[in-house]
Amino acid sequence: MPGDNIEKLYWEDVVVGEPVRYGAYPVTREAIFEFAHAYDPQPHHIDEEAAKLSLVKGLCASGWHSCAMFMRMFHDGVLANAASLGGPSIEEVKWLKPVRPGHVLSARSTCVDKRVMRSRPGVGICSMQHEVFNQDGEVLMTMRNAVFIALRVPRPETAEAAP
Amino acid sequence: MPGDNIEKLYWEDVVVGEPVRYGAYPVTREAIFEFAHAYDPQPHHIDEEAAKLSLVKGLCASGWHSCAMFMRMFHDGVLANAASLGGPSIEEVKWLKPVRPGHVLSARSTCVDKRVMRSRPGVGICSMQHEVFNQDGEVLMTMRNAVFIALRVPRPETAEAAP
Repeated sequence: MPGDNIEKLYWEDVVVGEPVRYGAYPVTREAIFEFAHAYDPQPHHIDEEAAKLSLVKGLCASGWHSCAMFMRMFHDGVLANAASLGGPSIEEVKWLKPVRPGHVLSARSTCVDKRVMRSRPGVGICSMQHEVFNQDGEVLMTMRNAVFIALRVPRPETAEAAP
Repeated sequence: MPGDNIEKLYWEDVVVGEPVRYGAYPVTREAIFEFAHAYDPQPHHIDEEAAKLSLVKGLCASGWHSCAMFMRMFHDGVLANAASLGGPSIEEVKWLKPVRPGHVLSARSTCVDKRVMRSRPGVGICSMQHEVFNQDGEVLMTMRNAVFIALRVPRPETAEAAP
C-alpha cells in the first residue's frame, strides 16, 4: 500500500561501512536443550557431564542454534525495519567461542558492499559482516552473508550497466 | 570405556572423495511456522499470503531451519556413528531453491580433504561438502564446513610435521 513502508530502510539508505549495533538475547539452558534435542543432539549440547569432557569443556549451544539466535536479533534489530527480501547464501560462519547458558548475546552488523541485481533491477544485494558478542564483549561468532533488499526506486539503467 | 566405541568411525576411516547418502526428513508446515516464529519471523516464513507475493513465491522454511534440518540428518546419518568432536566453522551455505512444506529431504556428504590438527595430535579435521535434495532429486541447498573427528591412534609425529 502506498505509504505503508514510508519509514522502512531501502537499499538506497544502506551506508557501506557504517556498523549497526543491536540485540540483547538471553541464552537459557532450556533453549539450548530444546534446540539440540530437535536438531543437533551431540553430547556437548544435551549432556552436562559429557560436555565437560568435550573439546568445548562444558555445555554450549549448537552452532546452528547460535546462528538462529543471531537471526532473531538481526530480524528484530535490522530486517523488521528494512525492505528485506530474504537472502540467498552464507559466505562464512566462525564459531570462535562456545555460547553458554547465561550468556546475553548482542550483535554488530556492517554492510561491506552493495549493488543492484542485474536480473532484477528493483532488488539490491548487501554483503554483510556480523559479529556476535556476549555480555562481556567477547566475540563468540562471526558471519558473512548476503541480503536482498528492495530499492525505493528501481534503477534499470544501473542494473544494465552492472558487470 | 575401552571397546565402547569399537564400531565408530574415526578419522583414519574417513575416505576422501567417497560420498555418503542418508536421510529422509519430512518438512511440515507446522515445523516451518514454529521455527520461524522463534527465530526468523520474516513474512515468507510465517504468512502464506505474504509469501506468495515474495521473491520465493510461496511459503518456505527459514534458511536457518533448512540448516538445522540438514544438521539433524547429518547427525543421525553420520555423526552419531563417528568419533565426532564438533565443528569450528561453516565455509559456505547456498540456498538454491526454497524448502517447502511436504518436501522430504535427504543429503549427500563427501569429505574433500582431511588433516591432523597441529595443536591437537589426537584430533583430525575433515573438510566436508554437502548437498541437500528434495524427494524429486532437486538440489535445494549446498554447504561446505569443517568437522573435528578423533583419531583412533594419535599421531604426534604427523602433527608436528604438518605445515
